[in-house]
Amino acid sequence: MTNYFSSDFKLGILGGGQLGKMILYETRKWDIQTKVMDGSKEAPCKIACNEFVLGDLLDFDAVYSFGKDVDVLTIEIENVNVDALEKLRDEGVTVYPQPEVLRTIQNKATQKLFYRDNSIPTSEFSRFAYTSEIKESIENGGLRLPFVWKSARFGYDGQGVKIIRNISDLEGLPNVECIAEQLVDFKNELAVIVSRNSKGEAVTYPVVEMEFHPEANQVEYVICPARINEKVAQKAQHVAKQVSNAFEHVGLLAVELFQTQEDEILVNEVAPRPHNSGHYSIEASYTNQFEQHLRCILGLPLGKTASKVAGVMVNLVGSEGHNGNVVYENIEDILSQEGVTPHIYGKKQTRPFRKMGHVTIVNENMGQARLVAQEVKEKIKVISK
Amino acid sequence: MTNYFSSDFKLGILGGGQLGKMILYETRKWDIQTKVMDGSKEAPCKIACNEFVLGDLLDFDAVYSFGKDVDVLTIEIENVNVDALEKLRDEGVTVYPQPEVLRTIQNKATQKLFYRDNSIPTSEFSRFAYTSEIKESIENGGLRLPFVWKSARFGYDGQGVKIIRNISDLEGLPNVECIAEQLVDFKNELAVIVSRNSKGEAVTYPVVEMEFHPEANQVEYVICPARINEKVAQKAQHVAKQVSNAFEHVGLLAVELFQTQEDEILVNEVAPRPHNSGHYSIEASYTNQFEQHLRCILGLPLGKTASKVAGVMVNLVGSEGHNGNVVYENIEDILSQEGVTPHIYGKKQTRPFRKMGHVTIVNENMGQARLVAQEVKEKIKVISK
Repeated sequence: MTNYFSSDFKLGILGGGQLGKMILYETRKWDIQTKVMDGSKEAPCKIACNEFVLGDLLDFDAVYSFGKDVDVLTIEIENVNVDALEKLRDEGVTVYPQPEVLRTIQNKATQKLFYRDNSIPTSEFSRFAYTSEIKESIENGGLRLPFVWKSARFGYDGQGVKIIRNISDLEGLPNVECIAEQLVDFKNELAVIVSRNSKGEAVTYPVVEMEFHPEANQVEYVICPARINEKVAQKAQHVAKQVSNAFEHVGLLAVELFQTQEDEILVNEVAPRPHNSGHYSIEASYTNQFEQHLRCILGLPLGKTASKVAGVMVNLVGSEGHNGNVVYENIEDILSQEGVTPHIYGKKQTRPFRKMGHVTIVNENMGQARLVAQEVKEKIKVISK
Repeated sequence: MTNYFSSDFKLGILGGGQLGKMILYETRKWDIQTKVMDGSKEAPCKIACNEFVLGDLLDFDAVYSFGKDVDVLTIEIENVNVDALEKLRDEGVTVYPQPEVLRTIQNKATQKLFYRDNSIPTSEFSRFAYTSEIKESIENGGLRLPFVWKSARFGYDGQGVKIIRNISDLEGLPNVECIAEQLVDFKNELAVIVSRNSKGEAVTYPVVEMEFHPEANQVEYVICPARINEKVAQKAQHVAKQVSNAFEHVGLLAVELFQTQEDEILVNEVAPRPHNSGHYSIEASYTNQFEQHLRCILGLPLGKTASKVAGVMVNLVGSEGHNGNVVYENIEDILSQEGVTPHIYGKKQTRPFRKMGHVTIVNENMGQARLVAQEVKEKIKVISK
C-alpha cells in the first residue's frame, strides 16, 4: 500500500477549474501533495495545490512534461492531450481515467459507437464526417427531422449542440465531424455517478434528477434523490454501472441519462470525472464525490455513497447583460435560510451563463429543500458592477 | 453589506495550524481573500491562503504590521499579542474576537475571576502570584488537598496543568502566576460551542461529551450529541450562552464544562475560536464550526447548528516512542468502514501525543458510530519510520 498521507507521493491534476478546486479540498484534508496544470493564470486551483503550472492542456509537450514527475495523474476536464497521457502511462505513470477511455469519450461519435458495441441503451444516431453531409442525407430520406446535431469534438456546457427542426436550422453550424441524434421524448433527465477502482469494485451514487435552463442548456437544479420510482432508479443505476464496467473505467464516471415516456433508460453522455450533478454530495452524502474520486484512483476502499439528507443544487451562472468584475447580490439573504451553502468558484469575471458557483440546499425533507432552492434561485444574482 | 465574495476584502488570521487550515476550506469555498501569519515555515496553512507571513504571534511589531492592511482580523490560537490587536482595533481594523476578551481568557486567573464576577458557575479556586505561595497556604490551612494546579498563562493541550494530591506533587512546577482549583467530582466532561455575532444573536451547537486520554490529558473521543438527559443538555447550553453573552463575544466560543455528580454544570475553561470539540461538525452538522465562525465575524446570518447525523471524533496523536517523519498505519483499513473521514493536518514530524489529525465517524445511529470509533482508535497508528 502506497503511503499517500503527508508523504512524498504526488498527484497530478490536469485542469485547474472549479472541479479541481473541490478535489483540492480533499487532497488538503488528507495532506496529499498535488501539482496542477491549467491554461489560465487566474485558475481557481492556483492556490491550495502544492505546485501550479501554467500550460496548455491540449499541447503534447506541456502535458507530457507536466506528468513526468507525478505518481498518479488525473484530470478535472476531459479535453486534454491524450497522446501525452498514453506516453506517460507507457513510461510508468499511473493515469486515471485511462487514456483510451478519454479518447473514446472525447469524440461523441466514437462514444456513441462504444455504447452500441457494448449493448448499452442509447438513442439512435448517425455519424457524419462533415456537417455538410447532413443536408444530403435528409434529402435522400436517410435522416428524418427533427434531430439533435452535436459536434463530435469539444462539446462542453451547451456548446456544440443544437436541435434541428428545419433544414434552415443547419445554417451557421461549423462544418465538422458530427452526429445526428434522435430527439428523445423524455420524462426526466437523470444522472448517476459511478465510482470504480482498479480492482473492478464499482459503487453508484443515488440517481439525481436534473432540470435544465431552457436557454443556456445548463443544469439549473440537481435534485437528490430523483423523484422517480424505485424500479426506474434501479434500472438507471444498473445502466450506469454497465457503462463504467464496459470502459473498465477507474475513477468517477458521471452518466447522464434520459428516462423516456415508456420508462426506458437511455445513456445520453458521460463525463469521466467529478461532475456538476454530484456537487450536492459535499453537503448531503456520507462520502462526497471528490473524496470518492481520490479513493478510486488511489486504490483506497470506496466510501459510502448514500445520503445523510436530501439535497438540491442550484448553479450560479452569470446573468445576461453582465460582463466584468463579479458581484453576488443577496447572498446574505440566502444565508439566512437553513441548510443553504453557497460555493463561489473564484472566477473574478462574470459573463452571461458562465458557471460562477453553486448553492447546495440540504434538508431532511426533500419538498422543503426544493422550496428553498427556488427562493435561492430567484433571489441571488450574479452580476457585474 | 460588505461584499466578501471574490472581492478585494481581506481576512487576516493569526495562527496557521490545523484550525486555520480548516478555516481556509471555508474561505476558499466562498472565495474570501486571506492572509495568515504563523511562526513556522511548515505551518499547515502555508498553502490555501492568499498570502502567508512568517512571524512571531506574540511579537507586537509582527502582529501590528501583519494586521494593518486586513479588513477583519481573527485568530485560530489565543496566545497572540493583544496590545497589537488593541492598537489595530483603535486604528479601525475589525478584530474578532475582541482584544479584551482574549486578554481575559489568556490568563486563567482573570478568566476565573470573570466567571465569578458574572455569576457564571465554576469550581472554587484560589489565585497565587507564584507557585511557591501555595505551600504556605496549605500549611496555614487556607488551601486543602487535593486540587488542580494551573499556570495562569499559556496552558495549552495539557501543558501547565497538574493534579496535586500531596505537597510533594508541587515539586518541579514552574514558579509562576497560577491558580489552585477545586478538584471537581464530575460525571461527564461536556462542551458547548456558542456562535455569536456583533448584533448579539447567539446560537449554540448541541452539547458534546468528551473522553480524555488519561496520560496525555488530550481529548480522545468527542461524541455528539452527548449521551445525557435533555434537562442537563439545556442547562449546559444555557450556561455556555451566558458566558458568551457576558463577554459580548463575537465569533465562536467553545465552552468546556463539568457535569457534576449532582448534575450541576460548571464552566471549566473556554476557547474563543473553532475548537477540537467541534471538528465533528464538518461531517455531521448543517453548518460546520469553521463556516459558522466566518458567519459570526463577518456579520453574516448564523447557520443552522443542528446535526444531520450522529458524530464521534477521534484525535490522531503521535504514538509514544515515535519521533520523526510521520507514517499513518492502517488508514486504508479504517477507510473501508462506512462513514469514516480522516483529516490529516499535514505536520510532517510526529512526536508523542502531538495532534497530527483527527477522524470523524458519522452514522444515523450513535451506538454504531461509537463502535466504529473504537475500532478506528485501536487500528490507526501515528508512528515514524
